[in-house]
Amino acid sequence: MRKGIHHHKVGESVDAYLLIKTGKKGIASNGKPFLNLQLTDKTGELEAKLWGISSEDEATFVSGSIVHIQGEVQDFRGMRQLKIKTIRPTTGMDQVKPDDFLPSAPRNKDEMLEEVTQYIFDMKNAKIQRLTRHLFKKHQKEFAVSPAATKNHHEFVSGLLYHVVSMLQLSKNIASLYPTLDTDLLYAGVILHDMAKVRELSGPMGTQYTTPGKLIGHISMMVTEIDEAAKELAIEGEEVLVLQHMVLSHHSKGEWGSPKPPLIREAEMLHMIDNIDAKMNMMDRVLDRVIPGEFSERAFALENRSFYKPTFHEPPIDL
Amino acid sequence: MRKGIHHHKVGESVDAYLLIKTGKKGIASNGKPFLNLQLTDKTGELEAKLWGISSEDEATFVSGSIVHIQGEVQDFRGMRQLKIKTIRPTTGMDQVKPDDFLPSAPRNKDEMLEEVTQYIFDMKNAKIQRLTRHLFKKHQKEFAVSPAATKNHHEFVSGLLYHVVSMLQLSKNIASLYPTLDTDLLYAGVILHDMAKVRELSGPMGTQYTTPGKLIGHISMMVTEIDEAAKELAIEGEEVLVLQHMVLSHHSKGEWGSPKPPLIREAEMLHMIDNIDAKMNMMDRVLDRVIPGEFSERAFALENRSFYKPTFHEPPIDL
Amino acid sequence: MRKGIHHHKVGESVDAYLLIKTGKKGIASNGKPFLNLQLTDKTGELEAKLWGISSEDEATFVSGSIVHIQGEVQDFRGMRQLKIKTIRPTTGMDQVKPDDFLPSAPRNKDEMLEEVTQYIFDMKNAKIQRLTRHLFKKHQKEFAVSPAATKNHHEFVSGLLYHVVSMLQLSKNIASLYPTLDTDLLYAGVILHDMAKVRELSGPMGTQYTTPGKLIGHISMMVTEIDEAAKELAIEGEEVLVLQHMVLSHHSKGEWGSPKPPLIREAEMLHMIDNIDAKMNMMDRVLDRVIPGEFSERAFALENRSFYKPTFHEPPIDL
Amino acid sequence: MRKGIHHHKVGESVDAYLLIKTGKKGIASNGKPFLNLQLTDKTGELEAKLWGISSEDEATFVSGSIVHIQGEVQDFRGMRQLKIKTIRPTTGMDQVKPDDFLPSAPRNKDEMLEEVTQYIFDMKNAKIQRLTRHLFKKHQKEFAVSPAATKNHHEFVSGLLYHVVSMLQLSKNIASLYPTLDTDLLYAGVILHDMAKVRELSGPMGTQYTTPGKLIGHISMMVTEIDEAAKELAIEGEEVLVLQHMVLSHHSKGEWGSPKPPLIREAEMLHMIDNIDAKMNMMDRVLDRVIPGEFSERAFALENRSFYKPTFHEPPIDL
Amino acid sequence: MRKGIHHHKVGESVDAYLLIKTGKKGIASNGKPFLNLQLTDKTGELEAKLWGISSEDEATFVSGSIVHIQGEVQDFRGMRQLKIKTIRPTTGMDQVKPDDFLPSAPRNKDEMLEEVTQYIFDMKNAKIQRLTRHLFKKHQKEFAVSPAATKNHHEFVSGLLYHVVSMLQLSKNIASLYPTLDTDLLYAGVILHDMAKVRELSGPMGTQYTTPGKLIGHISMMVTEIDEAAKELAIEGEEVLVLQHMVLSHHSKGEWGSPKPPLIREAEMLHMIDNIDAKMNMMDRVLDRVIPGEFSERAFALENRSFYKPTFHEPPIDL
Amino acid sequence: MRKGIHHHKVGESVDAYLLIKTGKKGIASNGKPFLNLQLTDKTGELEAKLWGISSEDEATFVSGSIVHIQGEVQDFRGMRQLKIKTIRPTTGMDQVKPDDFLPSAPRNKDEMLEEVTQYIFDMKNAKIQRLTRHLFKKHQKEFAVSPAATKNHHEFVSGLLYHVVSMLQLSKNIASLYPTLDTDLLYAGVILHDMAKVRELSGPMGTQYTTPGKLIGHISMMVTEIDEAAKELAIEGEEVLVLQHMVLSHHSKGEWGSPKPPLIREAEMLHMIDNIDAKMNMMDRVLDRVIPGEFSERAFALENRSFYKPTFHEPPIDL
Repeated sequence: MRKGIHHHKVGESVDAYLLIKTGKKGIASNGKPFLNLQLTDKTGELEAKLWGISSEDEATFVSGSIVHIQGEVQDFRGMRQLKIKTIRPTTGMDQVKPDDFLPSAPRNKDEMLEEVTQYIFDMKNAKIQRLTRHLFKKHQKEFAVSPAATKNHHEFVSGLLYHVVSMLQLSKNIASLYPTLDTDLLYAGVILHDMAKVRELSGPMGTQYTTPGKLIGHISMMVTEIDEAAKELAIEGEEVLVLQHMVLSHHSKGEWGSPKPPLIREAEMLHMIDNIDAKMNMMDRVLDRVIPGEFSERAFALENRSFYKPTFHEPPIDL
Repeated sequence: MRKGIHHHKVGESVDAYLLIKTGKKGIASNGKPFLNLQLTDKTGELEAKLWGISSEDEATFVSGSIVHIQGEVQDFRGMRQLKIKTIRPTTGMDQVKPDDFLPSAPRNKDEMLEEVTQYIFDMKNAKIQRLTRHLFKKHQKEFAVSPAATKNHHEFVSGLLYHVVSMLQLSKNIASLYPTLDTDLLYAGVILHDMAKVRELSGPMGTQYTTPGKLIGHISMMVTEIDEAAKELAIEGEEVLVLQHMVLSHHSKGEWGSPKPPLIREAEMLHMIDNIDAKMNMMDRVLDRVIPGEFSERAFALENRSFYKPTFHEPPIDL
Repeated sequence: MRKGIHHHKVGESVDAYLLIKTGKKGIASNGKPFLNLQLTDKTGELEAKLWGISSEDEATFVSGSIVHIQGEVQDFRGMRQLKIKTIRPTTGMDQVKPDDFLPSAPRNKDEMLEEVTQYIFDMKNAKIQRLTRHLFKKHQKEFAVSPAATKNHHEFVSGLLYHVVSMLQLSKNIASLYPTLDTDLLYAGVILHDMAKVRELSGPMGTQYTTPGKLIGHISMMVTEIDEAAKELAIEGEEVLVLQHMVLSHHSKGEWGSPKPPLIREAEMLHMIDNIDAKMNMMDRVLDRVIPGEFSERAFALENRSFYKPTFHEPPIDL
Repeated sequence: MRKGIHHHKVGESVDAYLLIKTGKKGIASNGKPFLNLQLTDKTGELEAKLWGISSEDEATFVSGSIVHIQGEVQDFRGMRQLKIKTIRPTTGMDQVKPDDFLPSAPRNKDEMLEEVTQYIFDMKNAKIQRLTRHLFKKHQKEFAVSPAATKNHHEFVSGLLYHVVSMLQLSKNIASLYPTLDTDLLYAGVILHDMAKVRELSGPMGTQYTTPGKLIGHISMMVTEIDEAAKELAIEGEEVLVLQHMVLSHHSKGEWGSPKPPLIREAEMLHMIDNIDAKMNMMDRVLDRVIPGEFSERAFALENRSFYKPTFHEPPIDL
Repeated sequence: MRKGIHHHKVGESVDAYLLIKTGKKGIASNGKPFLNLQLTDKTGELEAKLWGISSEDEATFVSGSIVHIQGEVQDFRGMRQLKIKTIRPTTGMDQVKPDDFLPSAPRNKDEMLEEVTQYIFDMKNAKIQRLTRHLFKKHQKEFAVSPAATKNHHEFVSGLLYHVVSMLQLSKNIASLYPTLDTDLLYAGVILHDMAKVRELSGPMGTQYTTPGKLIGHISMMVTEIDEAAKELAIEGEEVLVLQHMVLSHHSKGEWGSPKPPLIREAEMLHMIDNIDAKMNMMDRVLDRVIPGEFSERAFALENRSFYKPTFHEPPIDL
Repeated sequence: MRKGIHHHKVGESVDAYLLIKTGKKGIASNGKPFLNLQLTDKTGELEAKLWGISSEDEATFVSGSIVHIQGEVQDFRGMRQLKIKTIRPTTGMDQVKPDDFLPSAPRNKDEMLEEVTQYIFDMKNAKIQRLTRHLFKKHQKEFAVSPAATKNHHEFVSGLLYHVVSMLQLSKNIASLYPTLDTDLLYAGVILHDMAKVRELSGPMGTQYTTPGKLIGHISMMVTEIDEAAKELAIEGEEVLVLQHMVLSHHSKGEWGSPKPPLIREAEMLHMIDNIDAKMNMMDRVLDRVIPGEFSERAFALENRSFYKPTFHEPPIDL
């Protein structure tokens, strides 16, 4: 499996180990049952249909199991789909494990944790520093592996951490040009803004929204956590309130989930930096298989736009 | 002062004690200083301009002081305005005190507190009951006098409590028709939904938004308080989450300040009951000086509508 | 048929008489014709596909006919669907008739008609009373069986009457708390607001919009009817105009079909009461098969929300 | 009075008879009463302030009276305003009467009535013809003098009739290019669409909305009138319904007052023709005093646009 | 082939030459490949599926080829679909050519070009005339055959020219009623407004948006072309700017693609005339197969409305 | 004049040379003429009224003249206003010139021009480089002094250049983190995006929109200029089209003036960078006179928000 499934074009054949992300039974128009499989490796996902299944197949090819598949990539209404020729379950003999198949951040997670720690270490405002460190330590373990979302951007293992580290670098590079910005506030805002996603989402494997995630959401959860941390650490002063405001307002508008708009300079900047990193991640994704001179598929989370790759830009490496 | 200033029509003369709610200095177009006074008694407010003031006047006629005024109500661009003929500060001799001049709820506050207590007492779900009672006790003192808003509806002493009691009665009368409703949840939601207004607003006199009120808002404050109360009382279980959701969603939409829409039956009902009580309060207000057969002033908070009083309805008692 | 089809879960087998609500011919991807059947009993509806049909089947299994079916409930893209094992038409021998299969209001229609009559009887304003009684008598027969809509809420036999009776009770319970409300106006508004649905909709069986329903709509139809009734009864006075306004404005906003917003206190209340009863009916519906701790399907008419049933609430009786 | 007040530029002096359209008392910032006069002649309107008034002045210079004024046009915050030097009431000796001062349509009203009659006469569908003629006769007297609005466009004596006649000509010229259009329907729609403005508005002098106009509106009034006319004339058939739909839908969208959008070809065309004639009337108005190479004042009813007159266009005749 | 495919009803058989507009391979739920064919003749389009295809079929039945088909029109989810019984490619023997199968304007293109030339000839403003003539000559060849769009309205051979000629006639007929309109400007605006569609679209066969069409659009392209033409012809004066503005603003609003709203009387009129001609074309289209007394399919580009054909109107000739 | 007028608080006296930016005559409510002066120095603006003026005053105190004023800053409806005690025109003796009074960028313009030149010099794509250099040279003189807007942000001498240089630095710092970005495109987009503001605006003194600015706008102007420059330089290739697209789309949405949304990665980034620099400039402005612990005035161009300066931030230097 030298080339990941994300890079297979229509017409190419596939001979690979793949993880079944989800497997749903359906009934074909001829009345026969089939399985609709969402297959994944580190590079991406591909759908496949397994026709004419037995009840044994149904019990075998379930979410979380690894299979060996031979087939061909086909076009189905403008989407790539894998036509299965052979499929078999794997055993210990195959020496494969789920972790090898989950897409994850392009950087090492311990390195990234170290980098966040350094930003906290460099803070000058002791209250902001203590609050941020406390909450970072509290959630560090889940933070290290959590995705940042269920779809659209940074929806991979350690996606949240990767997003935060990118935003910290961006904050530093931007703040160097605007001396009025309080970098302690800005870095703390970046580290805390999405931290409660470790509670809003169910974790890196088969990521879903939790019930508290649906009823309360990560923004309100984090506002509460900051309050409780401040009480626990006996920190008083407006820093607590201001950090809560930054988390609360980072989606910028009521209709996007923030009950208050940013009313502090650093809160507005936090929102813009979040936006840049998310959009770059999404645009890189939709464009990475596009041939120069062509338009991408429509990207729903980017206002349904179809992006263009100019003819004078590089083609994707693996095409 | 038998007839309050709310009831004086254009052309009538006024001879009354009034409280100066706000007094702002301005410069007339002839270059002379004047005071723009917002005067109030229990029935309402009236604007007045005090022309040609000395610096002594400026020091005397300040917010919070009670004055004796003789004058006449005039029309100024469609608004009533008091033309001052004589004005003097009051002394101990006048035997008047600010409390007599602040508009307040039409019911006795202790009676209302008692009524809320009874609703809590009748709850069957012990977790909901303990949480609600704990938070009610915690804020009871400020809750008893706080207005529910700075303007539009229930913006008077004990306005918040009056609004809550009306909503409890409404909840009871509506829930009696829809047996699927969980009245413990609904009553608790009503009691808690606006409770953090005691922190969002600065209190009954010269009510303004506090800094935490502007940066965080009563909804997010209360979600945090519920969490902290549950921890303090060692209450676990989904009741805590559900009560937080009810508070969080009671404005119904993101653009109205709720980060989540109501996703529980009782949360949706809480929003509708809040809406009914606020609208009835506002409509009664805009219509109470309107003569049958005429339209009211436009009410900004009621989508800028001008309401009609049918000719076959009663005229206002004091007109 | 002890348990209605609304209550069958995926995987359960079905052996029941069912009414074919609609039957549409389609062509399968193998080129063979099939029938897409919408099946109904008093508890709800279920889709089924009948594969490989003959032209005789096509002529037999038509809208309005009752069939006996054996099969199993399956999941099709998240929706329940009935897989048919055997199907046969019924004859006189089966002793079944269409009325037994149409969902209808949970209360007896004559009792409900009696209740409306009592509300009219109690009115004090003779003009309002005569107008309301006249129009109620005129449409009473269709009013007694008409649904209130083609979908979303109260879309069953006598749904309109059931909705009106619920709203009358709600009006009474709410008005008891707000003494400024004119109950004659409010009750008359409730009784008349949707009355022209008997002309906008085609009746209780296979309910559709009529051509006048699509081109004019029940709101404008009823405004005209009130005018004509007043002329017929020689009633003059503003009551006629005000009742027309209440009907005209009860959808509250232009984009929801009301050319004028409510400009009278009772008109605003009518809109809010209509809203409460419709929403309670819809929420009860989407939640009634949901297991505690789970979220419902998305409800399009409730802003596409998915509602949650708390774990401490009761499970559905039949699950 | 050779040149009307609409054509006086800032800096020019005025010596003319003018009608007081409205006169409102105000209080100046020095505490003295003044009158805010809206003055009019056939060409337009001008505001003026009369300072330092006595109570006798107040009783003399009232709405509907004609005065003789000498003064000068000045600029007040970008608006023209008349600075009064002398003002006196008129008597029989002045030989002036209100009719001479009201702006009115540029065509003779009897000629226009005759033209409408001819369009009706030429209709081929007898039902449409009889209904239209009946309603036209019924309202002819008020129709002949009614304005089409209180402001924005055609807000002058016979403005409604002038608007209808222009639209009839426009209909004829457009329909000659689209043979699928039913001209009987289109002409009838034009004649009836705004007819109930004779009831929605209070007439040509000091035009205001009536109470039924505010609570019901001309669209719903006319739908009712068509129904009643059809009953009176014993006309049956879909023509009645279709004409009602055309009136109902002519504002095109719910938020503009039409409970149904146009669903018939001729209804859509009616809306577009109404739009063209109203916009041309408004644009001609805002541009008629603009010098080539300059932008007009902002026109609120034209989406607040400021229109440009190209340098190669003609200057206004009287500038 | 006496009756075009646009006029075939469900159930009718078809025996005709048809052009394959597009042919896309799909995989049926039984795993077999099929072709999804979009077939066209001068009257319209019809979809068909060709099941069980060989790789030879795939190579034969490609876009742009003409086939002979026997089959039957069926209903597929409310859409007409052709069920193919026999299909064969055509040869020289069949004496058919693609031009015979492309829908095109109902008028002769040379006649229409002549008509446009006459409008230009009659212009009085020499600058406007020279600019318009120059650009018309430059693009005349493509202009003569280009469609006006890829779908919705005037999407046929010479559709752009036909739309422009209709708009010129409309302009003349409307301008005759509003003497303030500058017809030179208006006619030039009509001729130029969509001219750059010859570059935005790929031409009359298999019409698609070009890359410059997607990245820049016809409006901005044309603004540039006018500037360049003026430089080439050494034309100075505000006419150039005003014509650019007319093209720029003809979509009326930012969200519809115009960076400036119409700020000149003739620009507003251009927008309204464009609107009338497009809507009439679309409504005629959706209604031309509708039987009197029925509603059309929903038309997405007409705000998703379903139009009604009154019972007293003519049925379609060929039904 | 050590401390600029931007920094004077209410109550402070002023003794300074100031430039009259605009002077408009008005009529006071006592009928006397006055001048409404907009006064400016390098730090900001202040309004003043000059009462009881003679016609000589009117001729003396005109836009563009420098005056010496003694007075006091007062509060007028929440805005600072200068109360004039003495005012006199200046002569050569005063040794003051307009340039000293116009607010301008905080950096030297030649230095900034040099910096832009360096960015162009470093470009690797020769087509992009030549186009950008050509257009930069063409407009360099006006570019060096033009403001970026008439209000809101960068509305000072050399504001456009200062905005572009800040954005170039921001581009460099951000692009260093996202290697997929084409910096040639991004830098060229930054340099060109607002270049046509030199034609849209009337220049640095008394900045207004020009007629072409209002009718066409800087975006469309620049798209044309790029096309013409490419023709002049005989540059072909997609770079021309892509640069036009970047300029065209940099306002991101139709309702904000861009006929196409960004469809290329660098175009999206250009929009975000423009946004960051404009917002930082605006926020710094509204906050720079705010005392820690207080909220700023509402900023219309920042969604009418009122920004907060935390108590733990620095107070303004000069307060």
